[in-house]
Amino acid sequence: MTSPLGIGLVGAGRMGSIHARLVHTSVPGARLAGIADVDAGAAARLAAQVGDPPQFGSMADLLAAPGIDAVLIATSSSRHLEMIELAAAAGKDILCEKPLSLSFADTDAAIAAAARAGVRLQVGFMRRWEPDYVRARQRLASGDYGRPMLFKSLQFDPEPPPLTFADPTVSGGIMVDMGIHEFDLARWLMDDEVVEVHAYGSTYAHPELATVGDVDSAVVNLRFANGATGTVELARNTTYGEDVRTEVLATKGSVWVGLLSATQGAASGGLTPGSIAVDALDTAIPRFERGLAAQARGFVQAIRDDRPVAVTGSDGRAAFAIAVAAGRSLRDGGTVAVEPRP
Amino acid sequence: MTSPLGIGLVGAGRMGSIHARLVHTSVPGARLAGIADVDAGAAARLAAQVGDPPQFGSMADLLAAPGIDAVLIATSSSRHLEMIELAAAAGKDILCEKPLSLSFADTDAAIAAAARAGVRLQVGFMRRWEPDYVRARQRLASGDYGRPMLFKSLQFDPEPPPLTFADPTVSGGIMVDMGIHEFDLARWLMDDEVVEVHAYGSTYAHPELATVGDVDSAVVNLRFANGATGTVELARNTTYGEDVRTEVLATKGSVWVGLLSATQGAASGGLTPGSIAVDALDTAIPRFERGLAAQARGFVQAIRDDRPVAVTGSDGRAAFAIAVAAGRSLRDGGTVAVEPRP
Amino acid sequence: MTSPLGIGLVGAGRMGSIHARLVHTSVPGARLAGIADVDAGAAARLAAQVGDPPQFGSMADLLAAPGIDAVLIATSSSRHLEMIELAAAAGKDILCEKPLSLSFADTDAAIAAAARAGVRLQVGFMRRWEPDYVRARQRLASGDYGRPMLFKSLQFDPEPPPLTFADPTVSGGIMVDMGIHEFDLARWLMDDEVVEVHAYGSTYAHPELATVGDVDSAVVNLRFANGATGTVELARNTTYGEDVRTEVLATKGSVWVGLLSATQGAASGGLTPGSIAVDALDTAIPRFERGLAAQARGFVQAIRDDRPVAVTGSDGRAAFAIAVAAGRSLRDGGTVAVEPRP
Amino acid sequence: MTSPLGIGLVGAGRMGSIHARLVHTSVPGARLAGIADVDAGAAARLAAQVGDPPQFGSMADLLAAPGIDAVLIATSSSRHLEMIELAAAAGKDILCEKPLSLSFADTDAAIAAAARAGVRLQVGFMRRWEPDYVRARQRLASGDYGRPMLFKSLQFDPEPPPLTFADPTVSGGIMVDMGIHEFDLARWLMDDEVVEVHAYGSTYAHPELATVGDVDSAVVNLRFANGATGTVELARNTTYGEDVRTEVLATKGSVWVGLLSATQGAASGGLTPGSIAVDALDTAIPRFERGLAAQARGFVQAIRDDRPVAVTGSDGRAAFAIAVAAGRSLRDGGTVAVEPRP
Repeated sequence: MTSPLGIGLVGAGRMGSIHARLVHTSVPGARLAGIADVDAGAAARLAAQVGDPPQFGSMADLLAAPGIDAVLIATSSSRHLEMIELAAAAGKDILCEKPLSLSFADTDAAIAAAARAGVRLQVGFMRRWEPDYVRARQRLASGDYGRPMLFKSLQFDPEPPPLTFADPTVSGGIMVDMGIHEFDLARWLMDDEVVEVHAYGSTYAHPELATVGDVDSAVVNLRFANGATGTVELARNTTYGEDVRTEVLATKGSVWVGLLSATQGAASGGLTPGSIAVDALDTAIPRFERGLAAQARGFVQAIRDDRPVAVTGSDGRAAFAIAVAAGRSLRDGGTVAVEPRP
Repeated sequence: MTSPLGIGLVGAGRMGSIHARLVHTSVPGARLAGIADVDAGAAARLAAQVGDPPQFGSMADLLAAPGIDAVLIATSSSRHLEMIELAAAAGKDILCEKPLSLSFADTDAAIAAAARAGVRLQVGFMRRWEPDYVRARQRLASGDYGRPMLFKSLQFDPEPPPLTFADPTVSGGIMVDMGIHEFDLARWLMDDEVVEVHAYGSTYAHPELATVGDVDSAVVNLRFANGATGTVELARNTTYGEDVRTEVLATKGSVWVGLLSATQGAASGGLTPGSIAVDALDTAIPRFERGLAAQARGFVQAIRDDRPVAVTGSDGRAAFAIAVAAGRSLRDGGTVAVEPRP
Repeated sequence: MTSPLGIGLVGAGRMGSIHARLVHTSVPGARLAGIADVDAGAAARLAAQVGDPPQFGSMADLLAAPGIDAVLIATSSSRHLEMIELAAAAGKDILCEKPLSLSFADTDAAIAAAARAGVRLQVGFMRRWEPDYVRARQRLASGDYGRPMLFKSLQFDPEPPPLTFADPTVSGGIMVDMGIHEFDLARWLMDDEVVEVHAYGSTYAHPELATVGDVDSAVVNLRFANGATGTVELARNTTYGEDVRTEVLATKGSVWVGLLSATQGAASGGLTPGSIAVDALDTAIPRFERGLAAQARGFVQAIRDDRPVAVTGSDGRAAFAIAVAAGRSLRDGGTVAVEPRP
Repeated sequence: MTSPLGIGLVGAGRMGSIHARLVHTSVPGARLAGIADVDAGAAARLAAQVGDPPQFGSMADLLAAPGIDAVLIATSSSRHLEMIELAAAAGKDILCEKPLSLSFADTDAAIAAAARAGVRLQVGFMRRWEPDYVRARQRLASGDYGRPMLFKSLQFDPEPPPLTFADPTVSGGIMVDMGIHEFDLARWLMDDEVVEVHAYGSTYAHPELATVGDVDSAVVNLRFANGATGTVELARNTTYGEDVRTEVLATKGSVWVGLLSATQGAASGGLTPGSIAVDALDTAIPRFERGLAAQARGFVQAIRDDRPVAVTGSDGRAAFAIAVAAGRSLRDGGTVAVEPRP
């Protein structure tokens, strides 16, 4: 057996910590070989939980250390391009959290940097690796379902992120931060490109979001290149937990992922007679952790097999373009054409 | 087209009224041709709702009237034998509510009376006609499921019947009144006979039932002739509505009827965060009305086609025998062998 | 007790027959007093099933007959105005199937005719009477749910209507024929008006619909006057039965009607290991029959109590206006403002 | 902060490996300080995945090593007593997999050994730590539900264990190996003791089990000390995955854990029209891992807080006694009294 692939993590925040733990425990053939963060305390605390890999104050130091074969980027999105350029220059394969960046220029620069250096660049659309979505994709691709004709996907979170993060200049706003997952699914499950969108949004539940130019809920219509249609709904306000559901109606069958009724507990005491309270899922993290771990394994396997990665910078760019168009429709009204690939 | 088959109803109470309405509206080829009840007011009130057929004060008068081709018996169980003997003597085909009677002697006498007279005697196990159960039976009979190995069925009602009716000398008690439906399903879905049972019961929710020798809940183990096992649970105390569920585990697959989650409404407002209240079914009547109507149609069709009925007096006797054994186990403890057919 | 209210039905087709049967069996205080249809055979066949009321070859004859206190209009939509004008002129209260008509001019003329004559005009939005929707409305109105912020509703049918009926000049097309129910729910459940819409449609499953200018599926974005948003999806192509679901996300809770999992049967035999086949609902008719019956009872009760009807011509006009706007967006692209009431 | 509690694991098989991984990743305040197994290769392979703790060929060596504060026993059940005696003699707190042993004599000896040594002895009933069960227990204990009156629990596995393990002399057979979890839940959720049981079993799906005196499915009736009743069903043969469901009917409400419909995926393609295939849960392990991790945390916390453990040897003995009685009823027929505590 060959020696394990050394993964360097940059960004020891919330998502970085989850990635680190999963690489440490659930990715055979890889090991967490270093953690970089400007916050030395955060890096140290995380390291203590994941086998105590060496810690670094900068991406440059991480890249210069021995045993780093590839990097996993989980910094804030605004710094993704810088990290990608450094890693590419150092010849390291890259798994980068979504979105690749917050502008077309930076996104294209990131893709170009990886291409020039000849390194892999995988984008963190972890739903593509989650077993239920994988099964949905396989079903639609099986030929048993005819042509996918209507795509529906929603993501309802219990609450908005902190105002500083909701700010579209930081996170990209609701369309880039949340919606990008659904837009990527739209392309992948429908096996088609979104060419035009229309969106409405509102700020009923969290009017403070309006102060940074964001919304707490939105509906988006999608038009696909081959004529199919779709709809995406986003909200940051549920009392019953995280709710992520996707559905595709095809000419000969439908697939569903994330049924509302998915739960393990229910009760009828202390309620109005005639009703049963079903416990909603505590959180989607356990569900998506399976996807995140499979994503890291897929990345490592592509490197080991010397194959291209399955979810490319180009995929990241395409989903970002839909999110940008939807954000523009939200702000300016009317339909907006999705900017095609350069 | 031939003239419609005239059905005479005896018993204008709760079940009789439902039967009358269904014959009136949902049984092509038949018409409600008369209603008999000692309570003339009840008969008149019901008649007004179902096309005003003639009313009679006794079964004898109903049978003597013109246009009565067959009878539907929905009196109290203690009078079933008398009604069956009268109808048989008059040469009328019979559809009788369950149970056929409250003793083996009367049950056998009822079957014998119909046999002697050469009339049809169908027992009102309406679940056998309900589409979901029909589908379950077809699935198990299809060969795709292997051998049925474990039978599970439950019936949870919101509340007990009035004490005067719960009295086992009137209704047969929980096993004969409620359980008989599950015991009939056990025989039918497993395509086998129950040979021994064991039961426990309790009176936590309705201790007053103990005063008439009945219980508010019970569990029953079943042993089938060919070695399979089963369990039936009965209760007269839910806050969430009527709950009727049946499940068969076979060697190559399972069937379910009556999932708990079957409902059309849900809500999350005013609840503990993280939960959703699902509306339970208001009542099973809409569900079983489909069965009751199909049962009446099946009865009429058997007469028109000059075929035997699908659910016979012998079926009624067999399910009654299981109920009697379960009732005896409940009272006396230990396992009880099911009395075989004479 | 007063004598029953005499209802005259015009239109003995599919919906008319269902209405007739429900008035006959499920509307205390009313009786079916006459059936008019140009097809005498259809009227006679229907009459035979519902207590044999007198039959008429025209609306005029029906209105001239004795014992007609109110009318139920179930002709083709293109003839609704004519029927309403005749009934209004005769001073009869009116319950008319949706849509009131296929043009603004006719819709306004119908409303004006009823107003001039001082008769009631109720529009057949039967979902407003269906218990699960009633409960959803009550919940949202209770104050426990905060402000409704996002409306979602879909209607997926197993197949399109015949091409001659799908023709928008006959039925109004997918938005007027199917969507109008969702648009009415949008107004009612959100307690707000829709001011602008955007729609996309496609014809993947039934390209023949394109020949009459209709589609087999569509997605619609809704903008409400107070800033809330919504989405409606329509399709005429499911393999699993009729699927009608509505969901409202409010600031403090959600309501759901028509969960996908609502069913009474399931099985696992003959399937890929690891899966269970849930039986979808055979049809929504049993579900909506409850609504149709309650609708007729509500109409009769309003007349008896000398109150205005609960669902008015103005409601019919408003939902129609949303449907028209959505249809225009579908054809011409871009967002379309909903034409306000005159 | 104090130094982490050192946990020594004995038994590097399937369950031992899961325990080791969870202690390594999910138990703050503890560390995996050593692994003992007679199979040195198994110990080494496991160690490599969990931070490379030292490995030992025997329990004695593990106990003699530095830094072992407590032990987790995951050997075969037949060796539990020996391990418990060694650990108790060494003064180590003990978390032992269920069942404590395969005989009353050994079980009592194990409890006595821990008592004499003054060490904690926790039994591995991990369901008591799983969030859905914890919530069910809290609900029933809240007073909102009245008195628990009927207990239902089932465990259906996809397949039997290897024949050598199914052998009751090795695993205790279906009642001790599988049923003991349900019997422990019965005591815990009902807050009562089971005093008598009745069981039937069969070997339709796996007749080979009869050769070792075991069955592939069984139904058990339970009688509680205070008069409540219960039923447990066990089977080793599902096509749709692992199915574990528990339900308690109380006088004022019900609780459910493990609804059949709990799933995240569904599809309708390639099926009989009118049905939807719901993906059953791949496996219960992800679900019970939450329980296993919480169990280890609870054990560590009790030690840190110098409190008794929550699930004691006495609990292990009581559930074992029910399992033994059920096994005897299965073999010998008739009801069997549960042997009371010594």
